[in-house]
Amino acid sequence: MDVFEVMRTQRSVKRFRTDPVDRGDIEAILTAATWAPNGSNRQAWEFLVVDDADTKAALAEVYRDSWNFLYRQRSTRRSFHDPRTAQAKMIRDSQHLKEHLEEAPVLILVCMDTSKNLVSTDGVMRMYWEEGNYTSTLPAVQNLMIAARALGLGTCLTTALNVFAERAKDVVDLPDEMRTIALIPLGYPEEPFRALNRIPAEESTHWNRWGNRIPSGSG
Amino acid sequence: MDVFEVMRTQRSVKRFRTDPVDRGDIEAILTAATWAPNGSNRQAWEFLVVDDADTKAALAEVYRDSWNFLYRQRSTRRSFHDPRTAQAKMIRDSQHLKEHLEEAPVLILVCMDTSKNLVSTDGVMRMYWEEGNYTSTLPAVQNLMIAARALGLGTCLTTALNVFAERAKDVVDLPDEMRTIALIPLGYPEEPFRALNRIPAEESTHWNRWGNRIPSGSG
Repeated sequence: MDVFEVMRTQRSVKRFRTDPVDRGDIEAILTAATWAPNGSNRQAWEFLVVDDADTKAALAEVYRDSWNFLYRQRSTRRSFHDPRTAQAKMIRDSQHLKEHLEEAPVLILVCMDTSKNLVSTDGVMRMYWEEGNYTSTLPAVQNLMIAARALGLGTCLTTALNVFAERAKDVVDLPDEMRTIALIPLGYPEEPFRALNRIPAEESTHWNRWGNRIPSGSG
Repeated sequence: MDVFEVMRTQRSVKRFRTDPVDRGDIEAILTAATWAPNGSNRQAWEFLVVDDADTKAALAEVYRDSWNFLYRQRSTRRSFHDPRTAQAKMIRDSQHLKEHLEEAPVLILVCMDTSKNLVSTDGVMRMYWEEGNYTSTLPAVQNLMIAARALGLGTCLTTALNVFAERAKDVVDLPDEMRTIALIPLGYPEEPFRALNRIPAEESTHWNRWGNRIPSGSG
C-alpha cells in the first residue's frame, strides 16, 4: 500500500470489531516497529502482546482507573474550544474505548528498557535521560501503527496507563527497569478508514525565524 | 512507494549531498507529519525549517557544543559492546554529521507548543505533562522522516540540541513556551538507501506475561 495513503488515513481507532488478528500480522507489525530510528541504535524497546482475556481485563481495569484519574485531574485552566479539533466527539470515543478496552482483540504495551538508555541518570543529564526514554521508543510506536493501518488494522496511541504504571507492570510481571510508554489496542475497525482532518501544515511552519512564513528561496 | 519498503530502508542518513530540496517536497513532508496521532488532537507541533546558510551555521554551532557536551558526560558505567549495533561506525558517522551539519540543505527543528499541552504542570501531573510533550510530537517526527524517505530524501533524528535548548531557541527566536524536540537534517543521501539491520522483533516480544515467548493461541 502507498505510504502517503496509509499515513493520510491512519485515524485513531477507538471502536473495534471482535474478529481475531492473525499472528503473522502481529509479527509483521512488530518487525516494522524495530525499523524505527532510536538512540544509539540500542533497540531498547520491549513489546508485551496481550491476547489473553483475563490479562486484557486486568490491564483494562488499570486503564479505566488511570483514565478516570486523568479526567478528574485535567487542567480546567487549559481547556480549549477550537472547533477544528471536534473535542466533544473525541472525548466520547475515548470514553467508549476506556469502557470496552478489553474487547479489542489485542493490546500491545510498548516499553522502554531503561537499563539500555546510555545517558547518565545523575545531575544535569537527568532530563536528557528522561526524554531519551520517549525519543527512543515513540518512532517505533508510530511505525507499529502505520504497519497496522497498512494491513487494515486499527490502533490508538494511549498513554493514560502510564500514570498508574506500577499497577500495570504488576499485571504483566514487568521488571523494575521497564518504563511503560504506550498501550495500543489493535484490531479491525468498526468503520472504514477515512482521511484525517488536520490544521494545514503551513500554519505550523516557520522559515528560518519564528513567525516568518516566507522561505528564503522566495525572499 | 510501498509503506513496508519505505520503513524497511529508512536508515539514519548522516552524510548528505548538497543538491537543494524542492520546496513542494518539504511541504509534503510536513503535511505528512501533521497526520500523526497526538494528545487530544491539539496538533501542538511547530516546524522551524532552516534553509538560510547563516542560520544553519548558527544552529550547527549549538549542535556541536551540545554533542561535545553529551559525549563528555556520557555514562561510561553504561557502555555496551553488542556487535549487532556496530557502535564504532555509528559514532564515526555521528561525528561526521556534527562536523558538517550546516552542509545539509535543510534543517528542521520540530518543537512542542507546551501552552497547548492540556495536562496540568502541577503536583502529581508534572511527569505526565513532561512525557506528553514527547508522546504528542515524536509520532509526527517519524511521519516526517518516513515521508522524506518515500521522496528519496534522507533524515536523521537528533536530540542532542535539546541539552542547550535555550541557545538554539535564541538563534531562531522561539517563544519561551516552545520545547525543542528534535533537529532533523534533510537532503539527498550520499549513498543509496539500504535495508536496516535489526535484532529480530521476536527477541523483544513477550506474550501476556514478561518472558513468555508463546502466544496464548498456541498454548
